[in-house]
Amino acid sequence: MKIDRIETAYYRLPLEPFGDAGHGAIDSEELITVKLHSEGLVGHGYSYTIGRGGRAVKALLDHDIVPLLEGRDAEDIEGLWDLMWQRLLYVGRGGLASFAIAAADIALWDLRGVREGRPLYALLGAGAREIPAYGSGVDLPKPLDELLKQTEGFLERGFPGVKVKVGREDPKEDEKRVGAVRELAGDGVDLMIDANMAWGAEEALERGRRMEEFGLYWYEEPTIPEDVAGHSRLAREMATPIAVGESLHSPHEFRRYVEEKALHVLQIDPVTNGGITASLAALKTADEAGLKTSSHYTDELSAHLLCASKEPIYLEKHAFALDPYLEEPQKVTNGRVRPTESPGTGLRFDERALDPHRVA
Amino acid sequence: MKIDRIETAYYRLPLEPFGDAGHGAIDSEELITVKLHSEGLVGHGYSYTIGRGGRAVKALLDHDIVPLLEGRDAEDIEGLWDLMWQRLLYVGRGGLASFAIAAADIALWDLRGVREGRPLYALLGAGAREIPAYGSGVDLPKPLDELLKQTEGFLERGFPGVKVKVGREDPKEDEKRVGAVRELAGDGVDLMIDANMAWGAEEALERGRRMEEFGLYWYEEPTIPEDVAGHSRLAREMATPIAVGESLHSPHEFRRYVEEKALHVLQIDPVTNGGITASLAALKTADEAGLKTSSHYTDELSAHLLCASKEPIYLEKHAFALDPYLEEPQKVTNGRVRPTESPGTGLRFDERALDPHRVA
Ligand SMILES: [Mg+2]
Ligand SMILES: [Mg+2]
Repeated sequence: MKIDRIETAYYRLPLEPFGDAGHGAIDSEELITVKLHSEGLVGHGYSYTIGRGGRAVKALLDHDIVPLLEGRDAEDIEGLWDLMWQRLLYVGRGGLASFAIAAADIALWDLRGVREGRPLYALLGAGAREIPAYGSGVDLPKPLDELLKQTEGFLERGFPGVKVKVGREDPKEDEKRVGAVRELAGDGVDLMIDANMAWGAEEALERGRRMEEFGLYWYEEPTIPEDVAGHSRLAREMATPIAVGESLHSPHEFRRYVEEKALHVLQIDPVTNGGITASLAALKTADEAGLKTSSHYTDELSAHLLCASKEPIYLEKHAFALDPYLEEPQKVTNGRVRPTESPGTGLRFDERALDPHRVA
Repeated sequence: MKIDRIETAYYRLPLEPFGDAGHGAIDSEELITVKLHSEGLVGHGYSYTIGRGGRAVKALLDHDIVPLLEGRDAEDIEGLWDLMWQRLLYVGRGGLASFAIAAADIALWDLRGVREGRPLYALLGAGAREIPAYGSGVDLPKPLDELLKQTEGFLERGFPGVKVKVGREDPKEDEKRVGAVRELAGDGVDLMIDANMAWGAEEALERGRRMEEFGLYWYEEPTIPEDVAGHSRLAREMATPIAVGESLHSPHEFRRYVEEKALHVLQIDPVTNGGITASLAALKTADEAGLKTSSHYTDELSAHLLCASKEPIYLEKHAFALDPYLEEPQKVTNGRVRPTESPGTGLRFDERALDPHRVA
């Protein structure tokens, strides 16, 4: 299966303005698509950003990754992942390089599925399963009434869990908002909070403890990813499980978190982690350590990947849904999702919907 | 001092083919230049890669960093560094983003020097000092006779130290090469070895120990940067000091190495570390821990930066010299270098020399 040629495209998709504590205001998503042609078949991959760095992801694909991959054997996905990692080592070791490697890696896995006529979960050695989904807003700037309206929407869609952003300057505001969502949702719903690395470990601990009275299902990214010791401390000293993963850009970074007992819920994102190959390695690390797993964004791919994990507790249904740009948006039934059954990832962009947003 | 406009350019500079254990064959260097215009003055900055990822560095500058910086106050360098870091957080946290942040940061420091009429070392609160320089080849593929010819050249130039790449498949070959260089150089010359992350920690320890008989001044990048525990172990169990730094892309990564006692010689590279601001922070960490410091590549900038360090032991005179493209190449006198005395960094590219290599 020789890789004959690879096409890339760059889109800027407008978003209803959102925000969180770590990344500030967000008004668009960058989407970088990859079509990998091999002996008459096509594998589809993509990468995304929250509005910054996407042109660089495309440049890395066009100038470094595409010339590296063309002419090589598409079947050796793990070998090609290592090759990309090694080739980009000097400017890589995670970070932005992982976003570009991911796009190619996803296309390679999709191509394998298309060729074998099997869905991604089966390629990963897993069986299809239903995974509970939770409603997730990027809602830090939203006033309380809108936050509650959003929560109502999640509950109406039947999600067994909802997540709220925290990280307002005044701790009392966070507490009021989380408390109000708990009251609205009732005790039967799982309630997660996400600080997007807003605080130092000390403050994260203090703030987190004050919100535990609302019955938290997990506490996500309480402090910066570099402070693994801080996460370990939070994991030890709090009753609420700690969830981390969207900001980890390589299997090395995940392994360090697991070794230092710095998380309870390992969250994958096959784009930011560096591809399906990298997220799969992270899930294996979680299985070996007996950790629960979940996902960040990437709803469609993660529905497959989490099937390959021993204890997938939740898939995130993210506020930035790609649904308007997909041929077949993911279905949520009784608050649960299943992986697609078509060959490959099942993720196909609707070119007519994307076209008006194409920039490069 | 408002930033009025920022120009960037991308060059591909041919290199005599070289190689090391970590990055493989290298045949060109990418150079990305920045000219930062502010109220009639210009600050010059640059970034480089070893032939991969440079187009992405330029894209990140053009599409994300330039629009972020234009119109802001050039004087608040630390504030702008934080702003760039934060803005690029989702695709950043080191890696390629640090190469782009560096180019802007270097231009900002240069501009400050130009405006104040003071050389960089003075802006950093330091006095000018002479720093010993060592000769450094990227010579892993070179046959032994060429390696020795290179060493002779270094000795003729009066360098008090020379560095040899290791990481050949057969340990005996490494030993033979290092031994031959020691024999040629005599006992009065400092001899460093650089493994460019070739091995796992166990093998690095075993291999390193077998080469210690040749009297090693330091052992550089024995294993992958992610294996900080491995570096700590090597630092504890070997008699030779461990040197690390060119692959660390943020002050966080340096702090972790220092906290885990995983290095003895902290090596800065103001491009790969994320700018002068970031390398300066790393040097401060070294000072606080009582560590020796050195530099990687970036000869001209590092001659200033190392003046701001308590124990700068060596500046690397790198095989990929930018000399043919500089208005004033760095002078080596009696095996020592000094920082330039002109305002700013003193580093100015010779546009006529660069022009034939401009690609974008
Ligand atoms: Mg999150
Ligand atoms: Mg080195």
